[in-house]
Amino acid sequence: MNEIKVTLADQLKQKPLAEQLEFGRIFTDHMFIMDYTAGKGWHDARIIPYQPLVLDPAAIVFHYGQTVFEGMKAYETPEGKVRLFRPEKNMQRLNKSNDRLCIPQIDEKLALSAIKKLISIDKEWVPSAEGTSLYIRPFVISTEPYLGVAPSKNYQFIVILAPVGAYYKEGINPVKIAVENQFVRAVAGGTGEAKTAGNYASSLKAQELVADKGYAQVLWLDGLEKKYIEEVGSMNVFFKIDGEIITPALNGSILEGVTRNSVISLLKHWGYPVNERKITMDEVYQAHKNGTLEEAFGSGTAAVISPIGELAWRGENIVINESKTGFVSKQLYGILTGIQTGKEEDPFNWTVEIE
Amino acid sequence: MNEIKVTLADQLKQKPLAEQLEFGRIFTDHMFIMDYTAGKGWHDARIIPYQPLVLDPAAIVFHYGQTVFEGMKAYETPEGKVRLFRPEKNMQRLNKSNDRLCIPQIDEKLALSAIKKLISIDKEWVPSAEGTSLYIRPFVISTEPYLGVAPSKNYQFIVILAPVGAYYKEGINPVKIAVENQFVRAVAGGTGEAKTAGNYASSLKAQELVADKGYAQVLWLDGLEKKYIEEVGSMNVFFKIDGEIITPALNGSILEGVTRNSVISLLKHWGYPVNERKITMDEVYQAHKNGTLEEAFGSGTAAVISPIGELAWRGENIVINESKTGFVSKQLYGILTGIQTGKEEDPFNWTVEIE
Repeated sequence: MNEIKVTLADQLKQKPLAEQLEFGRIFTDHMFIMDYTAGKGWHDARIIPYQPLVLDPAAIVFHYGQTVFEGMKAYETPEGKVRLFRPEKNMQRLNKSNDRLCIPQIDEKLALSAIKKLISIDKEWVPSAEGTSLYIRPFVISTEPYLGVAPSKNYQFIVILAPVGAYYKEGINPVKIAVENQFVRAVAGGTGEAKTAGNYASSLKAQELVADKGYAQVLWLDGLEKKYIEEVGSMNVFFKIDGEIITPALNGSILEGVTRNSVISLLKHWGYPVNERKITMDEVYQAHKNGTLEEAFGSGTAAVISPIGELAWRGENIVINESKTGFVSKQLYGILTGIQTGKEEDPFNWTVEIE
Repeated sequence: MNEIKVTLADQLKQKPLAEQLEFGRIFTDHMFIMDYTAGKGWHDARIIPYQPLVLDPAAIVFHYGQTVFEGMKAYETPEGKVRLFRPEKNMQRLNKSNDRLCIPQIDEKLALSAIKKLISIDKEWVPSAEGTSLYIRPFVISTEPYLGVAPSKNYQFIVILAPVGAYYKEGINPVKIAVENQFVRAVAGGTGEAKTAGNYASSLKAQELVADKGYAQVLWLDGLEKKYIEEVGSMNVFFKIDGEIITPALNGSILEGVTRNSVISLLKHWGYPVNERKITMDEVYQAHKNGTLEEAFGSGTAAVISPIGELAWRGENIVINESKTGFVSKQLYGILTGIQTGKEEDPFNWTVEIE
């Protein structure tokens, strides 16, 4: 295994106040980098002061987007310890994304130990106020200066850290979502299942158009028939209909969310009937009409649980649970964040403490 | 209009020999950069020595791929002049791509005059040997350091230049192409029509898998039914069936190629029946079976015309024109490169001379 060389920053930055924390705008004192060279493999694992990347303007990442990323969080427990939430799932998914994008596999154990070491060095940056956490962004970029369309011969695997505030400043609040009928996020055979830049670039336009009309996010339908529900914004999505909780089954164009997986496990643990299957927008509308649409919510690392108060579809406004946060959404948010921050029992051993 | 400030390199690099030229590996002495800041617009247009880009690791381009590019060429005429080929079309498409990716519009006249000025400064780099040219790569990257999924508030528009050799070292040669049945390049509502990184990242895996079996490129079918022909590799595609020349109609997921457009104009000018319409792979196969599939070729800036000698589809090998370059492919390649290099008459006034 590669040894991780550490170079500490001479000067440390001023840390922000908890109430100033936004999402993803402030970064810690250090970062992790490891290089890949064809024929040599991954090498020179190192922690260095947070600093700009210096890249040839012909680097493949700027032209052909050969890049993947992950998103995870570290939390401070009431005892002042720092914990990660199911980090091995993110490392597995990182390599799954790498495979789809023709990026060489990364040693998952090394990557995780690098993340732990980086956090332990920047431990003072882990915020402790309610709803705050340290967001972790591992990513891989292709750095070979070459304008041919081919996998790069050089890469960098980088990890940066950002102390972040509560996603919802006043606790969780239901959001208004527009069902997207024009633009498509992903299609089977594309890159929807991978956490790669192009999926997000492609979503910006739809997001911009609905934001002008007051919607927080779009709900993505399948790219083939624009009939089946896929994701909401950059989250997975759940519906509670007549007591049953339904989420779209993984089909190759839906991201395999770690929070999605945790939500399903918790719901089953609590005895809810949970069904991963195809679900059409029409079925959700019919449930609304006959009064059986009880709740809807998104799940993801950034917001954890995001209740949906209203869905706009084909000129109709589908108001869910009187635009209030439902019982299951509240319960999931409370228990999940409780487990993550060490305030609730962790029945599945999901959390990992950093020494 | 912005004035372009010029800072010349102190030391010039050694220029490569014509026979050493590959595609997109060597770059000239200078580059163009212009910055965008929200509220201020595009500013600080400048030509500077070719140098690395220095970017925050949180720059949006690395994470969410908000980026677009163009590809064009400059050619030396027998009289030693330098010419561009329909550059205004590339500038229009750049802004069309910008619109899809939520990137602010760029003054097309300024961009073109920047490209001309950059080439005139690096004029000695325009190669003159048969089949060589100066490849021009304008591109836009999103530079704001922010991990939220939203359009960037800062961008850089950059132009780099690369002297390139003939795409086919021994003139044009028919290539073997595999029809792609698993992976999808683009779908209506996605970004297929835009020249953006994600489309190319998504294509690498399919390309890698067929390359192992000896195919040069894949032929992309539509993402919905995997039935209609879209593009070949990163080129548009044409078929000659029973005297008629057919190319897939622009449908939102096919790139609007400048070479594609020029091929259609030339063929019509020469009196060929040309039809832009939907065409299925089954139709091509049936034409092959009944002996009316006369030619097939790709069109693009890099290769100009690339004849297809063989198509692999559902276990069948469809050999086209005995795997030889067809008459129309040869004629198009000869006349198009002739117009581009000033050796043939330019009936449509496509070329633009650089002073």
